[in-house]
Amino acid sequence: MKNLKDYIRSIPDHPRKGIIFRDITTVLQDADAFTLAIDEMKKLVEDLDYDVIVGAESRGFIFGAPLAYECHKPLVLARKKGKLPAEKISQEYDLEYGTATLEMHTDSIKPGQKVVLMDDLLATGGTLEAAAKLIERLGGEVVRIICLMELTGLGGRELLKDYDVKALIAYDETT
Amino acid sequence: MKNLKDYIRSIPDHPRKGIIFRDITTVLQDADAFTLAIDEMKKLVEDLDYDVIVGAESRGFIFGAPLAYECHKPLVLARKKGKLPAEKISQEYDLEYGTATLEMHTDSIKPGQKVVLMDDLLATGGTLEAAAKLIERLGGEVVRIICLMELTGLGGRELLKDYDVKALIAYDETT
Repeated sequence: MKNLKDYIRSIPDHPRKGIIFRDITTVLQDADAFTLAIDEMKKLVEDLDYDVIVGAESRGFIFGAPLAYECHKPLVLARKKGKLPAEKISQEYDLEYGTATLEMHTDSIKPGQKVVLMDDLLATGGTLEAAAKLIERLGGEVVRIICLMELTGLGGRELLKDYDVKALIAYDETT
Repeated sequence: MKNLKDYIRSIPDHPRKGIIFRDITTVLQDADAFTLAIDEMKKLVEDLDYDVIVGAESRGFIFGAPLAYECHKPLVLARKKGKLPAEKISQEYDLEYGTATLEMHTDSIKPGQKVVLMDDLLATGGTLEAAAKLIERLGGEVVRIICLMELTGLGGRELLKDYDVKALIAYDETT
């Protein structure tokens, strides 16, 4: 039986020399692989008491939406700056070059709600930390963070050490 | 029983005076409403012979991903410029001010494949037309376009008159 890593496309020297880009679109565009990914994520929330799923823009939506539908939970979006139309809060975070901002609607999380936070990728952890901070500023509690893929050796686990972080597959990028 | 329109948040004078913005995040963050939306979309593909679901960035992913999982179909992404890592083709389209570009991986659609194209919103139709052109340039056939919401009176239906377009709810923005 194939596992999820068999479906990841590795692109050498992208976006620059020496970097291997791990492309998840080849997981999505294989129905068996996508089923496997979502089914594994479902298993990661089976034991969990939670109220809401938050997906981080934009590939977090791809995993958060099927899980929300399957588990009959609300889906809340953590979006990039300027995309949400109603009253919202913002959180800036560092990128390799410069900064970016995530936003959430102020009414999207109610105080005391338990939240599963989802994205496709854990690398430096910056996006996920910003999303977690937004959730906490709204009074929510991040009870689990779920990613399809983790790139170890980039500091993400340390940055998110206060959270219960699960990834379905991992690549060691320090080697 | 509530219908989907009851869950849409209407924001007056956003993004500018005289415009009513129809916010779909309130559909997503209500589990019953999101279930209703995805179930209605499933009904729209039940009768259909198709191979692939294409979601347009980024809110098309929110509807395309659960449908792909539920119907065990490949999910292909039509993304904004610069987001896809492998060999791709591009299609420019007009916005109200300026232009934007959508891209798809060249190996994401195989010649002859029948495609269901999904987005949250049909307004002017520019994004969906660009996605349809990309699919056709890769040899695919768009057999249905599915949106959550249509804003009538903005020209979308005319622009997409060669396609079978379905929207779950409609607002007449000419009134």
